[in-house]
Amino acid sequence: MTSPFVPGPRVRIAGASTGPLAGLTFAAKDLFDVAGHPTGGGNPDWARQHPIPTRHAWAVQRLLDTGATLIGKTITDEISLGILGENPFEGTPLNPRAPDHVPGGSSSGSASAVAQGLCDTALGTDTGGSVRVPSSFCGLYGIRPTHGRLDLAGMMPQAPGSDTTGWFARDAETFARVSSVLLGEPIVADNLPTKLIVAVDAFGFADPATAAALRPMVEKLSMRVREVREEIMAPPGLSVWSRAQRTLQSCESWLTFKDWIDRDNPRLQFTVARGLVSSAAIPESERQWAALMRAEARARLQWLLQPGTILCLPTTPFPAPRKSLSLTALDPLRARISCLTSHGGLTGMPQVSLPGAEVDGRPVGLSILGARGSDAVLVAMAKAMEASR
Amino acid sequence: MTSPFVPGPRVRIAGASTGPLAGLTFAAKDLFDVAGHPTGGGNPDWARQHPIPTRHAWAVQRLLDTGATLIGKTITDEISLGILGENPFEGTPLNPRAPDHVPGGSSSGSASAVAQGLCDTALGTDTGGSVRVPSSFCGLYGIRPTHGRLDLAGMMPQAPGSDTTGWFARDAETFARVSSVLLGEPIVADNLPTKLIVAVDAFGFADPATAAALRPMVEKLSMRVREVREEIMAPPGLSVWSRAQRTLQSCESWLTFKDWIDRDNPRLQFTVARGLVSSAAIPESERQWAALMRAEARARLQWLLQPGTILCLPTTPFPAPRKSLSLTALDPLRARISCLTSHGGLTGMPQVSLPGAEVDGRPVGLSILGARGSDAVLVAMAKAMEASR
Repeated sequence: MTSPFVPGPRVRIAGASTGPLAGLTFAAKDLFDVAGHPTGGGNPDWARQHPIPTRHAWAVQRLLDTGATLIGKTITDEISLGILGENPFEGTPLNPRAPDHVPGGSSSGSASAVAQGLCDTALGTDTGGSVRVPSSFCGLYGIRPTHGRLDLAGMMPQAPGSDTTGWFARDAETFARVSSVLLGEPIVADNLPTKLIVAVDAFGFADPATAAALRPMVEKLSMRVREVREEIMAPPGLSVWSRAQRTLQSCESWLTFKDWIDRDNPRLQFTVARGLVSSAAIPESERQWAALMRAEARARLQWLLQPGTILCLPTTPFPAPRKSLSLTALDPLRARISCLTSHGGLTGMPQVSLPGAEVDGRPVGLSILGARGSDAVLVAMAKAMEASR
Repeated sequence: MTSPFVPGPRVRIAGASTGPLAGLTFAAKDLFDVAGHPTGGGNPDWARQHPIPTRHAWAVQRLLDTGATLIGKTITDEISLGILGENPFEGTPLNPRAPDHVPGGSSSGSASAVAQGLCDTALGTDTGGSVRVPSSFCGLYGIRPTHGRLDLAGMMPQAPGSDTTGWFARDAETFARVSSVLLGEPIVADNLPTKLIVAVDAFGFADPATAAALRPMVEKLSMRVREVREEIMAPPGLSVWSRAQRTLQSCESWLTFKDWIDRDNPRLQFTVARGLVSSAAIPESERQWAALMRAEARARLQWLLQPGTILCLPTTPFPAPRKSLSLTALDPLRARISCLTSHGGLTGMPQVSLPGAEVDGRPVGLSILGARGSDAVLVAMAKAMEASR
């Protein structure tokens, strides 16, 4: 069970014959509606209780309209509640760059399909890290756009205050073509940032080997800007931001799924159910505190990410862990991953993960983060970086 | 999906050609080992992680040796953690007496198979009510023997301090034949109790319609004894005993399953996972209190159930609920059922559920409870009651 595609017959829909993406192929995470096919959400009890969609999700329609051909729906962690990509119902998609290791999730199948070369790009979703983490683990370009920028119609929600549609590619050129279409904005080669912040707390939080492996990429980034400085990204602590984000995301995801759970008592992987049980028990006072911390985190990143400034950090604190680890081993890893990804859902700032480093032969990504709306600048920087590789 | 048998090829093993059970057929809940076949435990991830047994469970071997023929393994609530009999992986066995309603669990398939006439008797397990509840809901004779009396070798444990092996039958004659073999003691027709206690708290706790439907059975019981009196069974409250039992059972079941969960992160129905998550969070101080309450409950029932005395109560507070209710609807029902069953696991006293009453066309059972070791007396009373029907 290592296919990136959902079990059953493969969906294939030809794209428009002309357009900026003509000739490209794509896959869509099984959280996106494809008309006439169930949206499975990675769980056998989800589709059964939900009608078959009659329209494509906005992002699927947009890619088809601009020439890309859909070649399949991809496996996701159950109802997008996972970060490792191990789905016990549908299988763990292969991480071709590290076959004994997880692909990362929840957009596991999309990352796997692109990394295996089965398609040129693939749609994922990123609420708490679900595009960024598999980008890092599979050695891909991946974006979490500015929150609220893309139309999420037809995308299964998890926590609307943090949900985004993202995508993957193996090379910066394809990544830029797809990004231009989905962002609805040209990727201008000379529209590059001039200042770089190195998030010292995030590098300090990563495994030393990962921080060291990313150093040459940071050097290359540095050579493309006029000014480089080190800053603490999260003065209260990455773990405090993570706690706030997990609180907000959990409260929202419980609201999203509680009626389904109450009605259907679905089958779920133990850790997914455990997360939902914890979510249901979060006190309102804790949620209120988290909302205040979100406001402070947004202000912090807004202040750091002035026009022309980007920030870099390790996408994940380490490369992909081995498959089928025990919960005792995985729970601390999950918690550490969240510390490096939570700023995305918490602040809504766009982030691009760049491939190019390895630890013990496994990929690990470097992320660049910009102010709200600077998505195209980040993509342009990704292209410039690749050109210089 | 209403078969009582586990999916896949049916197991069939002929019993000895002579013996007290010659000519009878039986089924075994999928918690009992049958040599050469996986013990599934009602969950797709359990068998995979556990070796195929090489010996029959003690109870299976005993029935085969005394002439009964095994005709199948039956569906159980996942890892015996359920009281309603709705298993989303293997299906909900038919309750032939109330087809739109649950069969009761966790020995759901065993009760269903006997109630449908597919076999003469069937093995179940009762930790918190898993034989008594389906007996009541399906209109069967069922026994939870004295805790510690039967050899539980080859029976998948849940909470060893409360686990028992029980069995079902449609008629008291068959029930007595099987009971004599498994208890290893003759069922003596004139060895009957002389005093009857009516548990007024338990009758008051049941739905009024259920209490009323059971009245004629209580009258019949009363006519067979010299003395009848009303007593409160649980002075601290049935809900307090239930809380103590749920605490003890939960702590033990978490110990039983935690290594498997940690290693395998299994798929589970939401409510099963939710129960395990709660179990893991029980403070030691709460467990200690529950252990003290267990000692007090044992003393209470020991004092009430003097030699020659039995106590009667409704087996369940109502007949079988409808299938596929929401958790909002089911959770309070589950909690109420526990209030009438928790004394079993808490005190270890033997209990027999007798059929013979109906509410709105659905069966509901009357239970008789005796002192430790009085199992055969309870079975003899069941036989005497049927003779007088």
